[in-house]
Amino acid sequence: MSPDDRVQLGLQEVQELLERHRVLTTLASHEPSADRRELLEHIQRRQNLVDLQRRFGRRHPADLASILEALSVEDRRLVWQQLEPEQAARTLVEVGESVRASLVEGMSHQDLVAILTQLDSDDLAYLADSIPEDVLSDASHALEAADRRWFLDSRAWPEKSGGRLMTPEVASARETQTLGQGVAELRARGELPDHTERLFVVDARNILKGSVGLDTLLVRDPQTQIADAMTADIVSFQPDQPATDAAGAFERYDLISAPVVDDRGKLVGRVTVDRVLDFMRQESEQQALALAGLRGEEDLFASVWESAKNRWPWLCLNLITAFIASRVIGAFEHTIQQLVALAALMPIVASVGGNTGNQTIALVIRGLALGQIQESHAWHLVRKELTVSVLNGVTWGTVMAGVAGLLYHSLPLALVMMAAVCLNLIVAALTGIAVPLALKRARRDPAQGSSVVLTFVTDSMGFFLVLGLAQVLLM
Amino acid sequence: MSPDDRVQLGLQEVQELLERHRVLTTLASHEPSADRRELLEHIQRRQNLVDLQRRFGRRHPADLASILEALSVEDRRLVWQQLEPEQAARTLVEVGESVRASLVEGMSHQDLVAILTQLDSDDLAYLADSIPEDVLSDASHALEAADRRWFLDSRAWPEKSGGRLMTPEVASARETQTLGQGVAELRARGELPDHTERLFVVDARNILKGSVGLDTLLVRDPQTQIADAMTADIVSFQPDQPATDAAGAFERYDLISAPVVDDRGKLVGRVTVDRVLDFMRQESEQQALALAGLRGEEDLFASVWESAKNRWPWLCLNLITAFIASRVIGAFEHTIQQLVALAALMPIVASVGGNTGNQTIALVIRGLALGQIQESHAWHLVRKELTVSVLNGVTWGTVMAGVAGLLYHSLPLALVMMAAVCLNLIVAALTGIAVPLALKRARRDPAQGSSVVLTFVTDSMGFFLVLGLAQVLLM
Repeated sequence: MSPDDRVQLGLQEVQELLERHRVLTTLASHEPSADRRELLEHIQRRQNLVDLQRRFGRRHPADLASILEALSVEDRRLVWQQLEPEQAARTLVEVGESVRASLVEGMSHQDLVAILTQLDSDDLAYLADSIPEDVLSDASHALEAADRRWFLDSRAWPEKSGGRLMTPEVASARETQTLGQGVAELRARGELPDHTERLFVVDARNILKGSVGLDTLLVRDPQTQIADAMTADIVSFQPDQPATDAAGAFERYDLISAPVVDDRGKLVGRVTVDRVLDFMRQESEQQALALAGLRGEEDLFASVWESAKNRWPWLCLNLITAFIASRVIGAFEHTIQQLVALAALMPIVASVGGNTGNQTIALVIRGLALGQIQESHAWHLVRKELTVSVLNGVTWGTVMAGVAGLLYHSLPLALVMMAAVCLNLIVAALTGIAVPLALKRARRDPAQGSSVVLTFVTDSMGFFLVLGLAQVLLM
Repeated sequence: MSPDDRVQLGLQEVQELLERHRVLTTLASHEPSADRRELLEHIQRRQNLVDLQRRFGRRHPADLASILEALSVEDRRLVWQQLEPEQAARTLVEVGESVRASLVEGMSHQDLVAILTQLDSDDLAYLADSIPEDVLSDASHALEAADRRWFLDSRAWPEKSGGRLMTPEVASARETQTLGQGVAELRARGELPDHTERLFVVDARNILKGSVGLDTLLVRDPQTQIADAMTADIVSFQPDQPATDAAGAFERYDLISAPVVDDRGKLVGRVTVDRVLDFMRQESEQQALALAGLRGEEDLFASVWESAKNRWPWLCLNLITAFIASRVIGAFEHTIQQLVALAALMPIVASVGGNTGNQTIALVIRGLALGQIQESHAWHLVRKELTVSVLNGVTWGTVMAGVAGLLYHSLPLALVMMAAVCLNLIVAALTGIAVPLALKRARRDPAQGSSVVLTFVTDSMGFFLVLGLAQVLLM
């Protein structure tokens, strides 16, 4: 069965179940006899539990998460309450941030602790930012001493650091062992942590020396020394490295798992590709939302009030910049009065500038993310974008000038339009390069904010160029 | 060593090398004696080759790819020419599309075939779209018969289908074997394909039955029947499924590799997580570029002409829509003449509409991608976004009205502004929902094009509302 079908089918089942639930609730509430009402409610509760447990007992938590995310807030809570603690815990790890917040919000301290105590230390650490501090503290007491220490340590890593992607579950072997001894140890252990495709090889002081693949363990002569069979040159991370570095390395070197070492080279944990995939997906989603000026994930079924507030900072900023740009126009009211065609033409110049500038920004942000833009290249890039914008400015400025000239029967007006388009494209290219580079230098995310600043500049300059040039040349 | 350092160090080395190359070239060209010139050129060539092979011989192809991407077109070709065919082949797989095109362009038919014959059938299939047909045909003759058949078959899969992510290298076992027999077969084979964390279990007709992890092979009793040790309920794909489905499933179910089966359930290949990671990264990059109206990846060091042309379709579309929107203003020139303040205020209303509409679009696109938006919810969503926009319209419309009223000492003008902001936010919300849903229905990418249509609508309506309301209420 394809993954999408799994979710769709599950969703249909839940919705039928919820429908029946609603019918029974309505029946019960309209039933005058208290006895029969109680009976109906009893039937309903039992049926729900039996059905849900039968239908969801074996569903993958990721599927449950998708189902929950596609339900309205009320239905979501109803389904959520029927889940067993262990399943609820694993589902809580899988749902998106905003839906998780809505689920956590609706639960009592006690219920939440009961669910969270089902989790490993690394899953608990993963959820930590969405859980109230007192609940977290109670839940962490259920961990074994070593796990609890790891959990508390892990919380010290900065947000979006590699440490936040780390799990303590590591299968390792000593370099002095033979492959056969390594296999015997694994056999004694019985089960390997998820996503173990190789053992990390350490010395007596737990310093990382290399790694040996499970395939090597399977196919090579068991008498071989691990030190001889291992790969010594392996990519490792430190927990305070940015998580994006780790993600890039997983993509670049096709990793499944990678060791995390402290500054003395001691093996302290492991990053696995599943966490990296989750992280990458989240990052790309957040970037798309950030570009539109949304602070974070927004639950599609969140309250109107929450949603409205989520959009305020951007709206407010946008109003301020648009207002300032409009003052440029205000300063030229006299000019517009004399030639009202300018009012119609100036938004075109502003808009073309904004659009081409955003293209430059998209390319620069991508170049920065891929490490293709070096200080030494900056000038090359500026020269090139300038040439492109002059070329495009002349080409499309001529088109624009032709249309404006024909429409208003005025050659001077056509020349003003052409010059304004050209100059605004140059402004757009320079701003489109300068703003993301400046944000990067200031160690800010170049994706967030570049576009507002650019639009502000190209709007103001677009208005200023059309009106200013018109005042000088036409009045 | 951290992955970023690897690339940075490599880049420095290459740049030093290129610098020396340039000095020697200049020296040689200024040398009057032909003998000494030849000697200098000889030294230079030998040194370059020795140095490059020493320094790059053991570099990871992904690092080499990053280094090449950060070099200018000339330097890139110079370094590229020094690579051994095998290394060149593996690097060609790793570099981005546009840089790959620039490298392929500069090579002779013969050299390109020599490089491509180093590749497996799946890597060759991966590159196929960037390679001229005749070169591809010659290179595929070097493949063994079975690989060649697989290669030709794979080309039939549609773009962005799961089949395009597939590799034919599969380790499988028969369900009638014991674990010990499975291990013995692996040992006889000697080496496992990359990213093999489990064997796929098939019956006598090669129909997929389940999978068994390498860890199970290692730790369970070798006498156990594979049929008893295997997991039967596994996620599999069909080659004509969209690749995004496969990517979603890898993320959801934390997969490392997954089987691909034909419509009779026969095992035909395998998708591995490294290809999925590459695919996801490419998709999210392409989406970011598409949002800015760029058709595809653009090499930062591509020629000015190429770059200019890449931006034309969008620029042209933008000019047309901006021009049409400006005709709305043109129709009200008489109104503006009477109250020139309108010219300054109308871009604010247009801009606020565009920005909030883009927020709605970002949320809807995300909801569609995650499958959270169902037909049954569409109305819920419309109601909610409308309420949010009325709430925001009243709040920020009042602010705007206050500022405009104070600035121009006119209460009627303030009321016009407030009504225009409110109404344009409602238009923006409706358009922001309708456009991506319509594109999705028409089986187009909702990320591409939504924003242009929205900006066109909110600009035109912004101008129309301010000027139209002013004409009715103020004139």
